[in-house]
Amino acid sequence: MPRYRLLIEYDGAPFVGWQRQVNGPSVQQALEEAAERLTPNRPADQPVRLHAAGRTDAGVHALGMVAHMDLPRVLPGGKLADALNALTRPAPIAVLEARVVADTFHARFSCIERRYLYRLLTRRATPALARGRVWWIPRDLDAEAMRHAARRLVGHHDFSSFRAAACQADSPVKTLDALDVARVGDEIHVTARARSFLHHQVRNLVGTLALVGEGKWSDDDVGRALAARDRAAAGPTAPAGGLYFLAARYPDDCTEV
Amino acid sequence: MPRYRLLIEYDGAPFVGWQRQVNGPSVQQALEEAAERLTPNRPADQPVRLHAAGRTDAGVHALGMVAHMDLPRVLPGGKLADALNALTRPAPIAVLEARVVADTFHARFSCIERRYLYRLLTRRATPALARGRVWWIPRDLDAEAMRHAARRLVGHHDFSSFRAAACQADSPVKTLDALDVARVGDEIHVTARARSFLHHQVRNLVGTLALVGEGKWSDDDVGRALAARDRAAAGPTAPAGGLYFLAARYPDDCTEV
Repeated sequence: MPRYRLLIEYDGAPFVGWQRQVNGPSVQQALEEAAERLTPNRPADQPVRLHAAGRTDAGVHALGMVAHMDLPRVLPGGKLADALNALTRPAPIAVLEARVVADTFHARFSCIERRYLYRLLTRRATPALARGRVWWIPRDLDAEAMRHAARRLVGHHDFSSFRAAACQADSPVKTLDALDVARVGDEIHVTARARSFLHHQVRNLVGTLALVGEGKWSDDDVGRALAARDRAAAGPTAPAGGLYFLAARYPDDCTEV
Repeated sequence: MPRYRLLIEYDGAPFVGWQRQVNGPSVQQALEEAAERLTPNRPADQPVRLHAAGRTDAGVHALGMVAHMDLPRVLPGGKLADALNALTRPAPIAVLEARVVADTFHARFSCIERRYLYRLLTRRATPALARGRVWWIPRDLDAEAMRHAARRLVGHHDFSSFRAAACQADSPVKTLDALDVARVGDEIHVTARARSFLHHQVRNLVGTLALVGEGKWSDDDVGRALAARDRAAAGPTAPAGGLYFLAARYPDDCTEV
């Protein structure tokens, strides 16, 4: 059975998240059901299963999610992407690319780097065009101070202070390879890069940096929050709508057939 | 009565357009009704009237619409913007700025330059995050050819070929000061600048440039379409959702009190 690697964009607003859940529509379910309609003759005990690089929460968007699935049908990548896009309509999901990969490729377990973007809109007026796409903070933040404080968080650390209670990772120790802060017009963009992240880690990091941007916290406060290894010691969880799964990276040797 | 100048952002999707109409919600109506709630004691024969630099069509967005209104109440600009934003919720309208101006200022008649942005998404996959915000063309366009052809349209011309039948302008002769084409990732952005535009002019210009981008039309075809002074000679009207009113410019002396 050929294995397909998909590159996916979605608007997270109408979904309970990436992962299938009983309480509402998920990106995974929409794509799996579309794929099943493409393969009506597969054995009933072999539902199509989609595995993603990141299981985003409700409201979180993706510009470049990577996922894979095995399909009992050989289709050129372009045709598969077109068919999935047609069958998932009107859900705001777009398969940007589909291609056959070696069956050793696993979107989640082969992934060696994940990148996220977080958008904060820092202006007095409510968002109109960016509603549900940014964290609206109705005052200016000091992006330079945030950028400086972010350096304290980069590196190999116990990130317990930035980990959701529901996190299922074996260990809170992760290596955060980059945490950059940039001003873009009336927005502040935070980008984070690591091999893997804890549940809510990016949103908790951003919630903490926002305290710095507001002038309430210093670099040292951020350092102390990290050292405390206690969720209660760090800032709040930034809202889901500002978060975007940007990209997943894989070793070259596992991406080609 | 103080005159207020407003700078407004809106998502055009849920509106019948800027202008009040009996068949649905308009940006003008939402803001006028909000302003009227702020001034309950004004004479009944003096409804609040909002005048805009551009009367955008249904589905057209604005990043920087300028409008003015007279209010029988003195309010600091920031407070007025906050109140209008609170009272128009949940409509996707944001008043970015409000300030008192001289009563010689007229958002429509004093305006000396208008700028529009048009976004085309040129990729095979449907838009997910940019749905309703771009014209989706499922193949690549030659942006360089479009940029080159756009030069034929800049200048002082009879734009009858790019004018909607419903256009109420006295004359089809306008000066198009700039028509720029730029590739931005998987989008092509067309920006247009003129003192004023005919009805549908930007969308008709973009529809024509898209024919060039597809390789169907040459620069000379564009020149002939312009010279024909006949709407049937030019390209189709690009969809409303890709168009954004960007900015309006005024002489310095009419913007301050």
